[in-house]
Amino acid sequence: MASTTSSLTLSQTLLARAISHHGSTQSSDQPRLSLSSSLSLPTFSGLKSTSSCIPRATTSRRRLPARHQHNLVRAAAVETVGATTETSLVEKSINTIRFLAIDAVEKANSGHPGLPMGCAPMGHILYDEIMKYNPKNPYWFNRDRFVLSAGHGCMLQYALLHLAGYDSVKEEDLKSFRQWGSRTPGHPENFETPGVEVTTGPLGQGIANAVGLALAEKHLAARYNKPDNEIVDHYTYAILGDGCQMEGIANEACSLAGHWGLGKLIAFYDDNHISIDGDTEIAFTESVDKRFEGLGWHVIWVKNGNTGYDDIRAAIKEAKAVKDKPTLIKVTTTIGFGSPNKANSYSVHGSALGAKEVDATRKNLGWPFEPFHVPEDVKKHWSRHASEGAAYEAEWNAKFAEYEKKYKEEAAEFKSIISGELPAGWEKALPTYTPESPADATRNLSQQCLNALAKVLPGLLGGSADLASSNMTLLKMFGDFQKDTPEERNVRFGVREHGMGAICNGIALHSPGLIPYCATFFVFTDYMRAAIRISALSEAGVIYVMTHDSIGLGEDGPTHQPVEHIASFRAMPNILMLRPADGNETAGAYKVAVDNRKRPSILALSRQKLPNLPGTSIEGVQKGGYIISDNSSGNKPDVILIGTGSELEIAAKAGEELRKEGKAVRVVSFVSWELFDEQSTEYKESVLPAAVTARVSIEAGSTFGWEKIIGSKGKAIGIDRFGASAPAGKIYKEFGITAEAVVAAAKELS
Amino acid sequence: MASTTSSLTLSQTLLARAISHHGSTQSSDQPRLSLSSSLSLPTFSGLKSTSSCIPRATTSRRRLPARHQHNLVRAAAVETVGATTETSLVEKSINTIRFLAIDAVEKANSGHPGLPMGCAPMGHILYDEIMKYNPKNPYWFNRDRFVLSAGHGCMLQYALLHLAGYDSVKEEDLKSFRQWGSRTPGHPENFETPGVEVTTGPLGQGIANAVGLALAEKHLAARYNKPDNEIVDHYTYAILGDGCQMEGIANEACSLAGHWGLGKLIAFYDDNHISIDGDTEIAFTESVDKRFEGLGWHVIWVKNGNTGYDDIRAAIKEAKAVKDKPTLIKVTTTIGFGSPNKANSYSVHGSALGAKEVDATRKNLGWPFEPFHVPEDVKKHWSRHASEGAAYEAEWNAKFAEYEKKYKEEAAEFKSIISGELPAGWEKALPTYTPESPADATRNLSQQCLNALAKVLPGLLGGSADLASSNMTLLKMFGDFQKDTPEERNVRFGVREHGMGAICNGIALHSPGLIPYCATFFVFTDYMRAAIRISALSEAGVIYVMTHDSIGLGEDGPTHQPVEHIASFRAMPNILMLRPADGNETAGAYKVAVDNRKRPSILALSRQKLPNLPGTSIEGVQKGGYIISDNSSGNKPDVILIGTGSELEIAAKAGEELRKEGKAVRVVSFVSWELFDEQSTEYKESVLPAAVTARVSIEAGSTFGWEKIIGSKGKAIGIDRFGASAPAGKIYKEFGITAEAVVAAAKELS
Repeated sequence: MASTTSSLTLSQTLLARAISHHGSTQSSDQPRLSLSSSLSLPTFSGLKSTSSCIPRATTSRRRLPARHQHNLVRAAAVETVGATTETSLVEKSINTIRFLAIDAVEKANSGHPGLPMGCAPMGHILYDEIMKYNPKNPYWFNRDRFVLSAGHGCMLQYALLHLAGYDSVKEEDLKSFRQWGSRTPGHPENFETPGVEVTTGPLGQGIANAVGLALAEKHLAARYNKPDNEIVDHYTYAILGDGCQMEGIANEACSLAGHWGLGKLIAFYDDNHISIDGDTEIAFTESVDKRFEGLGWHVIWVKNGNTGYDDIRAAIKEAKAVKDKPTLIKVTTTIGFGSPNKANSYSVHGSALGAKEVDATRKNLGWPFEPFHVPEDVKKHWSRHASEGAAYEAEWNAKFAEYEKKYKEEAAEFKSIISGELPAGWEKALPTYTPESPADATRNLSQQCLNALAKVLPGLLGGSADLASSNMTLLKMFGDFQKDTPEERNVRFGVREHGMGAICNGIALHSPGLIPYCATFFVFTDYMRAAIRISALSEAGVIYVMTHDSIGLGEDGPTHQPVEHIASFRAMPNILMLRPADGNETAGAYKVAVDNRKRPSILALSRQKLPNLPGTSIEGVQKGGYIISDNSSGNKPDVILIGTGSELEIAAKAGEELRKEGKAVRVVSFVSWELFDEQSTEYKESVLPAAVTARVSIEAGSTFGWEKIIGSKGKAIGIDRFGASAPAGKIYKEFGITAEAVVAAAKELS
Repeated sequence: MASTTSSLTLSQTLLARAISHHGSTQSSDQPRLSLSSSLSLPTFSGLKSTSSCIPRATTSRRRLPARHQHNLVRAAAVETVGATTETSLVEKSINTIRFLAIDAVEKANSGHPGLPMGCAPMGHILYDEIMKYNPKNPYWFNRDRFVLSAGHGCMLQYALLHLAGYDSVKEEDLKSFRQWGSRTPGHPENFETPGVEVTTGPLGQGIANAVGLALAEKHLAARYNKPDNEIVDHYTYAILGDGCQMEGIANEACSLAGHWGLGKLIAFYDDNHISIDGDTEIAFTESVDKRFEGLGWHVIWVKNGNTGYDDIRAAIKEAKAVKDKPTLIKVTTTIGFGSPNKANSYSVHGSALGAKEVDATRKNLGWPFEPFHVPEDVKKHWSRHASEGAAYEAEWNAKFAEYEKKYKEEAAEFKSIISGELPAGWEKALPTYTPESPADATRNLSQQCLNALAKVLPGLLGGSADLASSNMTLLKMFGDFQKDTPEERNVRFGVREHGMGAICNGIALHSPGLIPYCATFFVFTDYMRAAIRISALSEAGVIYVMTHDSIGLGEDGPTHQPVEHIASFRAMPNILMLRPADGNETAGAYKVAVDNRKRPSILALSRQKLPNLPGTSIEGVQKGGYIISDNSSGNKPDVILIGTGSELEIAAKAGEELRKEGKAVRVVSFVSWELFDEQSTEYKESVLPAAVTARVSIEAGSTFGWEKIIGSKGKAIGIDRFGASAPAGKIYKEFGITAEAVVAAAKELS
């Protein structure tokens, strides 16, 4: 792929790369976008049209509960900004969005019309007036990012992508909303729909992703912008609802956004007072405004989000003017706006309106058109985005060409980050070890890898949830990413595991060459599992550095000792669960993790020291399971001992014992079940011959699932209870995770 | 057990029940407390001593960063309240606490001395001056509850329990801190140490548990107190640190506490500016005060938490006076107070001070004693708590005796709640079904069970994370538990799954007869997994009502479709994962869930309708796996088909098909692996005879783990990828979760 770069502009190449779909849910690898369409060179067509603005007449406002009137919240001043289109056309466009959503949900007889109907005004203003993007290249680097954190309202986004001219959402896509194989699934999925940045739906994830996207922008801008050439310069917009606001992850991520002063993050809070259980008064009476001020955000209140277009525009202008804080624009809206009988009630949240109410809504909003119709003037109005977007991109390409001439080295690095093409030979930086290398904890070996990789991978950045010195994740040659030092690459997440994971998803999905890692104790993956699952689903190649991976952590006890976690991730699709045993295997785990840019990796690492074992290798790890020692011949060992991580040493010791007693013993490292599964039948047979049923596994975790590897006749040594607080060696002994136990089991079987 | 009640006081009986240890981590079921010691009748010995207070001289204060000086925070007025002991003795007691912590950590060479050293003053004031408890009966119902949310500082609590005279923490227990088999594990564990209310350590859980404890108090008080006899009247105190404050779960739970107006919840925020990564300035610069005000809390700032004893006392007095809001007392302290070289740094957080620094600290604080020494005057001072506590209990017992005379019915119900003795015959309320009963979704059948049980189980209460109408969890005869209607039993958690789980843990551990249930979509167990794990570990019998349990939910797509979740919980210790197939099995699942008061249950329930199958039964569910139909003889079927939940119907259909073709087919429902595991070898052989290797399983989830049940030669039909957005029937077909697939697999094997 690298060889073709020279003949195309950078962004075209990136598009070509981005659309070679990776297919976890696809039956083939056919790109979904026509590449040729993106190759027609954009022509510069000027910026937005400048027809004069006709301010909207005063509109009726909803009665607002008292809690919205406290004096800390300022309404945005009503002034005319950003509006360049006749209000009647704006209104028509907004109603188009509403009815595309209504019609699609109605046809599917499933979905969430309420949010799109309420948020259509802010959606219109964002996509038609504010955001910079190129619909014909959804992956153009310098586009503004948009995240619909309230992902159930995805028809809002599909309608906007459709109007804006994205090839991913044609009329037929709207008509196949929520159907098998469509590009318009029930919640926004970045891997299905170009133009969708991240996968949302599970509440709170999106706003945390948005924090990650904004972090990435701030970081890259600080590293690569020059006084004469600011090649990184875009905003991140998000819409979140009451549900997102209640989720703890949102508070975690927004606390960090405030701490980091992410001034180019602008979040719209769809304050509609309705959640699935009814009025938010029944469970959500906090002052969101005050909380966000406490979190260090700039807060603006648009009281009339239904028709106060100029208020929305003014709020965005104000938000952009505040450069040192993220902004929350609380937009009070009516869920299901326009529906005469269902607006402002939970019944419009998550079901089709029904034919009768659709008719009533058409009458109420004066919409005479058939389903899925986009009026010609609306279509014409939006059609400019193709040429405008092409112009933005062409302008940026020219800017980057200048940059490349002047700042060759930075440009090369930057290209690697935005293309995802890793520097050739990066893997040579990985350390290797011999059995003579000193014993060490794999968490320390992990730090050696991270520090080695940071020198050769410009997109590697990350950190820990307040355990940097325990997880061993500091990059020694860099400082901390902070408000005033955003060019640095050590991220301090605080004790916010869930937010950390989702922020890393945002970073990973910002640019394909950004490789975020994050860390905590393995047991606390429980706090961030929802974010890890989104990594796996949305193909975000986050590296999870999870230390203290078993009872080997000792005294902290069962609350801190993972037992079932390794099994729980082996069961999760599209994720690599790696448990390296020593230095070479840790390096191998990083080789795999960095290579897998569309599949997250979890590295389970020890707190305690482990010896470097003969026979381990990076290449072995890449196969998931491999032989580290064997004194049998003809692929017929008497017994196969299988270990992972810190227990591979125990398996090796037991193997030696048994060999002394004359047994033909094979010792296998089973560092990643997923990778082993992907090997050829021949290879698998060469490691685990079907004829050899005498198999003993040892792993300081749940035995759940091990029958697959050891068969019905094998013996799994593990921990099927919670741990205990005591020195590690004592617990190992009491729990029977010992070489003696392996030897005894092997003798029983062979 | 019930028959013994009459001869003992109620609280004594409860103690006897509580201490019959259930033994998940014990090798035997020996009670750890001597029952006889608790049977000596308490004698009334008056209330607190009234020696006059000598106010403490002005002490030096730490320099405070600017963010602590904003005008929203008021310092508690310095007034002399609650102090009844000479300050010199108070100080000596506080230093005793500090050194017990220092010495225990030093001896273990592991642990967290920093928090106990900083929080010893508030700890002393709480346990010596404020809280009401009976050290000789840690389970006395009306005790004040204390939660150390910053659980790593557990030596604070152990020192306090020791001084207060709890039999669970004797000197030898302090000396075996963090050792195998000790009652003083590395984090507080309610199931190891009577006097510890909940299991903490994973940050943020404790404060959420405290919200649950306070909810339980408010609820029971509203239901059972009478104008002339307030038998429920106690406070919940918690200490949380910066780490807890950063966790999203804490914000979720505290938002609810504010919403519910839990006026008897008083939380101390140990504001020490240090977390593991160093100064909180690097990741935590929000205004906690402002956030909590936004959450509806009363906020007080004690600027000098190190020596400002009267400030602490005044703050508690003020907090108690605010009856309609929970109170956060921000107490600015110095972590590791007294250590000349390590105080106020992260190095004192999580490691032993080291002999040299221990010496220096002894000198600095003027502490001439050997390790673990409790000075005589301190010992004497604290010794009154045994008699005082006995008096509190005796007084309460007398009060309850009065209550029982006057309010017989309420007293009986109340006794059931505080004793955990379920009303006889409660299970008869469970509905039963026949194959002729209409097909229904198990989520609806679940609601029938909940509503039936609510009539006979006075302690059943709960709700959903904003999905009551989807999870079908409303108790129709009750209203909402709200600030002004706390007697009601439908709890509205909002979209706060993690907080919900931890709040339910608090409710469950408040009183053994409280049976909290909570609900969301099964996939969102990912959001609350850390709380669910604590349910399992701390033996809190929470019932998790998890609906939309597979691809059967259809259009919402992969973000909402659980795949790996069922496997992930089967791997978790001490939890019951149940997936009922129809009405009888749903009732059976509730039978099991209610019976298991020390083991949480997860019920995975369908969104879609399912027929009532011949052969299903409550009794079958209790065995975990059982035969629902069989045309074989001699325990030798040609093939065994195994299904769970919504796929049992498919297995049954396939069975009929195969029988038509002349096969001898057994169909097995495998509703709970854990329960099946607990059956006798004979029973297991009668269901899954070892000789029959032709086994096909079908479950709309990950096949991970199924090899254990079907053996190496069986075939598992399941879903080892993420789901898809489409109508449910379509996805089932595309994914091959069909009777045809079962028939084909069965034919291949048999």
